[in-house]
Amino acid sequence: MPPVRALWYDHHRLSLIDQRLLPGKLAVRRYRAVREVGEAIRTMVVRGAPAIGVAAAYGLALASREAGQTPDRAAKLLRATRPTAFDLFVGIEAVRSAWAKGEDAEEAADRYCANVVEECRQIGLAGAPLVPRNARLLTHCNAGALATVQWGTALAPIRVAHERGKNPFVFVDETRPLLQGARLTAWELGREGIPHSIIADNSAGHFLHRGDIDAVIVGADRIARNGDFANKIGTYEKAVVAHENGVPFYVAAPWTTFDFGRRSGDDIPVEERSADEVLTIGPLRLAPRTSRAANPAFDVTPARYVTGFVTPAGVVAPRSVARLERSAAARDIPRPVRGRP
Amino acid sequence: MPPVRALWYDHHRLSLIDQRLLPGKLAVRRYRAVREVGEAIRTMVVRGAPAIGVAAAYGLALASREAGQTPDRAAKLLRATRPTAFDLFVGIEAVRSAWAKGEDAEEAADRYCANVVEECRQIGLAGAPLVPRNARLLTHCNAGALATVQWGTALAPIRVAHERGKNPFVFVDETRPLLQGARLTAWELGREGIPHSIIADNSAGHFLHRGDIDAVIVGADRIARNGDFANKIGTYEKAVVAHENGVPFYVAAPWTTFDFGRRSGDDIPVEERSADEVLTIGPLRLAPRTSRAANPAFDVTPARYVTGFVTPAGVVAPRSVARLERSAAARDIPRPVRGRP
Repeated sequence: MPPVRALWYDHHRLSLIDQRLLPGKLAVRRYRAVREVGEAIRTMVVRGAPAIGVAAAYGLALASREAGQTPDRAAKLLRATRPTAFDLFVGIEAVRSAWAKGEDAEEAADRYCANVVEECRQIGLAGAPLVPRNARLLTHCNAGALATVQWGTALAPIRVAHERGKNPFVFVDETRPLLQGARLTAWELGREGIPHSIIADNSAGHFLHRGDIDAVIVGADRIARNGDFANKIGTYEKAVVAHENGVPFYVAAPWTTFDFGRRSGDDIPVEERSADEVLTIGPLRLAPRTSRAANPAFDVTPARYVTGFVTPAGVVAPRSVARLERSAAARDIPRPVRGRP
Repeated sequence: MPPVRALWYDHHRLSLIDQRLLPGKLAVRRYRAVREVGEAIRTMVVRGAPAIGVAAAYGLALASREAGQTPDRAAKLLRATRPTAFDLFVGIEAVRSAWAKGEDAEEAADRYCANVVEECRQIGLAGAPLVPRNARLLTHCNAGALATVQWGTALAPIRVAHERGKNPFVFVDETRPLLQGARLTAWELGREGIPHSIIADNSAGHFLHRGDIDAVIVGADRIARNGDFANKIGTYEKAVVAHENGVPFYVAAPWTTFDFGRRSGDDIPVEERSADEVLTIGPLRLAPRTSRAANPAFDVTPARYVTGFVTPAGVVAPRSVARLERSAAARDIPRPVRGRP
């Protein structure tokens, strides 16, 4: 099967796989206006920090062809869609600044996208040596091709290890409330024949404690200067329990996820989403009609629980994150000083 | 509203609330044969360690009126239903031994049931002082009336604190895969007007880390002599993360849950249930058709993460569990030497 791609852009049109419908249905939605792209990001047709950055970049590309749009107006619309993933703001700024300078916004978006794909490929090469032969790995949420356009962040080293015959096995956290693990990660792994087992999020600790997991690898939505990072809700629990059991915990991310303007995780905004995501699944109401739910979409994991960050330039310790600012800047992608708010 | 009762026995008939259908439907199933009761326990019409102990006790009461049944044959059938909860084996032994001695099995089951209800009431009184005014508590799974016949274990002190006007607020882990928190605990709390918020299991760590939770209180399925205990899958993660954040972690249980014949948690059998519990919800398939799941129904939490056990005789430290054997024996309930296997 051809490799999964979360989105593509041709004929002045952005195509997104509707990730809300997988694995039951593989549907592609097509967009010609920035406002529609903003809505697709907000409602999670597309999700995953690197992928929403690319989708937003193409949203600006579309805006550049719309009557009455300006770089700043379109950027403002897109910035308001979701608060936590830093890549969103990097993707927006990359194309906004090019367009504002009179450059071709579609070309700028293409360059931004190609760069994210290339960085994920490099993450796969950099991270594969961390995967021992016959490794049993744990991953949380979906940090695969669907989250990043192609290859993935957390899944990229696993893909490379699998191709090299190292026979990795993946425990897939189902990742409530939206089940990106059970729906999306399992779908990607299944397509490529990578052996895996879905587990309830509650089971991860059990397997870590029993010694059934050799390493944990996750993606990130935003990494602060001190190595604290935000990722899908539940990541913090897995990191603490991995640490308690001496299991290495890796965070894989491209440069667009590193927010050197935030000193620590305390400065990272955490999105609160609708209670209905917890209280219902599809048409089913799970809980009593009178019960409420709290639904933080992300949590922040302190740097001390991270064994290493898998970056396009190799694996680095949390204490060295601040020093990566130069590598990130060297990519020639204009970066926002700070993402919203 | 009258207090919830998970089951009752009259006219030589056992009635169970079908807990698989709550909160959508309140249905009562009636049983006249031990084999049917065994099936109800196995398929989780009734669940919760103290409640399945009582259901099994009444299963033997029914068997004592069936042609061709013997105490040992009926006990064997019931012991094979589920492996982890110790109460199941205590409930079986209490009635089996009475019946084998020629006593009235129905009366023995009634005594066993009344004792469990009374112990839960005492747990409520013993645990209420641990709940500070305006406390924000976390609980996992359902350790309420539905799990114990009446009052509950973990929920009993919260009920008493609520009645005393201490205004507790409860974070309710939804508790995948079978959602006993979102379905059953939320239903019990809602009936009594106790404020609560359902959260995805993944969120518990986030709230513990932010200081939003003052104490964790859970039930147990089996407590070993050294204070290690088995409870619903996910309990171990919550205990580790509570410990990491200095949040007190309490385990509430009647004497029937204490298995002094097991030296440590390593000796506690953990039930593996069907993968379908993870892969589907009702009629919905969540994951790809080709994906598998692992589904351990319980995990074992080492004693070092427990602040205290809330017993009918008060709150005791994990290191003092072994000394409780005399209190438990003093109850005059015959106890099995070891539960299966």
